[in-house]
Amino acid sequence: MGKATCVSPFAPKTLPDAPEIAGVRFATAEAGIRYKGRTDLLLAVLDPGTTVAGVLTQSKTRSAPVEWCAQALIDGQARALVVNSGNANAFTGKRGYEAVEITADAAAKALGCGTGEVFIASTGVIGEPMEAGKFAHLLDKLAKDARPAAWDAAARAIMTTDTFPKLATRRARIGDTEVTINGFCKGAGMIQPDMATMLCFVFTDAAIENAALQPLVGHAADRTFNCVTVDGDTSTSDTLLLFATGAAKARGCPRIADAADPRLEAFAAALHDLLKELAILVAKDGEGLTKFVTIEVEGAESGAAARTIGLAIANSPLVKTAIAGEDPNWGRVVMAVGKAGEAADRDRLSIWFGDHLVAKDGERAPSYDEDTVARYMKGAEITLRVDVGVGSGRATIWTCDLTHGYIDINAAYRS
Amino acid sequence: MGKATCVSPFAPKTLPDAPEIAGVRFATAEAGIRYKGRTDLLLAVLDPGTTVAGVLTQSKTRSAPVEWCAQALIDGQARALVVNSGNANAFTGKRGYEAVEITADAAAKALGCGTGEVFIASTGVIGEPMEAGKFAHLLDKLAKDARPAAWDAAARAIMTTDTFPKLATRRARIGDTEVTINGFCKGAGMIQPDMATMLCFVFTDAAIENAALQPLVGHAADRTFNCVTVDGDTSTSDTLLLFATGAAKARGCPRIADAADPRLEAFAAALHDLLKELAILVAKDGEGLTKFVTIEVEGAESGAAARTIGLAIANSPLVKTAIAGEDPNWGRVVMAVGKAGEAADRDRLSIWFGDHLVAKDGERAPSYDEDTVARYMKGAEITLRVDVGVGSGRATIWTCDLTHGYIDINAAYRS
Repeated sequence: MGKATCVSPFAPKTLPDAPEIAGVRFATAEAGIRYKGRTDLLLAVLDPGTTVAGVLTQSKTRSAPVEWCAQALIDGQARALVVNSGNANAFTGKRGYEAVEITADAAAKALGCGTGEVFIASTGVIGEPMEAGKFAHLLDKLAKDARPAAWDAAARAIMTTDTFPKLATRRARIGDTEVTINGFCKGAGMIQPDMATMLCFVFTDAAIENAALQPLVGHAADRTFNCVTVDGDTSTSDTLLLFATGAAKARGCPRIADAADPRLEAFAAALHDLLKELAILVAKDGEGLTKFVTIEVEGAESGAAARTIGLAIANSPLVKTAIAGEDPNWGRVVMAVGKAGEAADRDRLSIWFGDHLVAKDGERAPSYDEDTVARYMKGAEITLRVDVGVGSGRATIWTCDLTHGYIDINAAYRS
Repeated sequence: MGKATCVSPFAPKTLPDAPEIAGVRFATAEAGIRYKGRTDLLLAVLDPGTTVAGVLTQSKTRSAPVEWCAQALIDGQARALVVNSGNANAFTGKRGYEAVEITADAAAKALGCGTGEVFIASTGVIGEPMEAGKFAHLLDKLAKDARPAAWDAAARAIMTTDTFPKLATRRARIGDTEVTINGFCKGAGMIQPDMATMLCFVFTDAAIENAALQPLVGHAADRTFNCVTVDGDTSTSDTLLLFATGAAKARGCPRIADAADPRLEAFAAALHDLLKELAILVAKDGEGLTKFVTIEVEGAESGAAARTIGLAIANSPLVKTAIAGEDPNWGRVVMAVGKAGEAADRDRLSIWFGDHLVAKDGERAPSYDEDTVARYMKGAEITLRVDVGVGSGRATIWTCDLTHGYIDINAAYRS
């Protein structure tokens, strides 16, 4: 993908001040894998005893690092995370696997852990041979340099076409102990996660066993990252990992073994909230966007049906270009509902743009006033609400418009 | 949709010289439904005894005229076809149905036939109330004026954002008698037919009973119109109708009752060929296109799987923009194969751009030469071939690139 030339209008003014998390340290380097004059290599060092769970892309052509993580997640113990940007190491054949092995070996040696405790993620161009030799030798020094407070630097090192770093932080109580959750992610194009999105790494000092960690992250991803789309394209590399160092045990935090443990409720809510913030930041950095769009679907047969309808609307080039043109073209929304293939009662369909009811009972609403709705469309944040009139399933999808900027970024030649 | 400002570079230099078909006559009018200074109303008058079969959009929000045709197809007898452009009469509630009834009544009265023998199609803006009063009164005069040779005028009257009329003709033998098949269609955006595409009307003087006509048209549509996509958006109005006047009986042509009758083989082949030509013309008029793209998928688990993979490639905004940028970015093709969800063996995947093998056995082909393939990408017609390495299913999909022109056309405000 080409380089975006300016920062998204939805970039937060400042990065949140993410506190240190005991048991997590970072170091970054300029390895020159593809980019010049910026960091492109991240090492996260994790204390012994850290558990990990995650969700990975369901793509049938997933990358070598994703396959590595799938294997390492079976044991679910983590001592290191290595992320490079610039090369996705996807569709790189046997040499791709070898690059992953070389990386894992180097990290394991630097930290004195097993290779199965090293998690690896790569993002960037697909199909370009990966030379692990370009950066594996740097890991030893990074392991020595790693510091606990480097969240900002970590979030920046994994960016590709992102126009701003994406970092979020939450606190939650488990029993009487306050724990911290910090996360960062990257992603701007090739975004319609099938499981997770692009790369997202979340860290906590809570003590949560793998059996509880996996359902926790899976459930939260379903209603956050799996509800974001920029262009309907699913990456070969989507990876969401949640690392729990357990360091809060030293402060009296109980170790949780069961996802249904009521003591996890506040933590689960905070995790959901943090992932939602990060997922929305991905949509707000959609390539070439001028508008951030929220699509609320209700009245569907099920939550899954609502999500399918919401994604059909969010991915329709005609809906996306109408929003870019500030045109309240609800006919295209009707079309997208129809093509989704899920049950919908055309004659009970209602559509709102913001608070303005534009269509009701299968035709234009009597109260519809084109000028009023056209004014609403000039805003930077647009909400479409659709009631498909057959049940009680609902879903919220976050996306952006489709503009000349997207074409500029993606029709640019790679070199 | 806004108006395209220039003619597609793939428009044929001349329209084919479609011969008259006994039993079919046309008249057109400038009804001023939406467009000024051009025809927007078509009446086709069909002789008694004409059989009809068709495929209609599977959209859950299909238009009032589509619902009317679905009902009329049960009897499968046709005396008239009324088509208007400028207003799709979709999502127009009860008034939409009433407009269809008014139109059918007027046509039936003009021709002295039953309303169930009148077929109706509308194309244009969705959600705008339809005033049949604007044109129903014209049908009486059109019925008197109808002439057999007006194929060109008929094809033009149904256009919306099309930049050129789409007309094709074939001849085939049934027994010892030569029959004619003529067809025309319209469509440029909101194109990924689920059954048929947009509007396509085909006429023949062959004598074919409904029981044989329906499978004939359904099978041909599956491998032609159902393999075209411009933007992945499915219209509320997609309609393909095949009318057989039976007039060739007077010249000794047998009346065919069974689709499996071997005497239909040449006719079926000619029909497939004609629909393929028209379907390709739709892709060649894709909104804003600069390149016509053929995607050939082979080695899939089944033909249906190959079609799903082909459509995933054809609808990927990242693949489409890469082609617009003349970038042989096969990594994005790998991504699209992966997201299709059908079986594919990443390590046996091969990709060709034209005749150039770019990827083989899960990585870049050793023979790949970027300059050579980049030169190929500068051509106006691009073929991508993908072998997904798991079976023998194959499919061909026709599409176009995604350019600034598409954004210009579709982000323009409706008014």
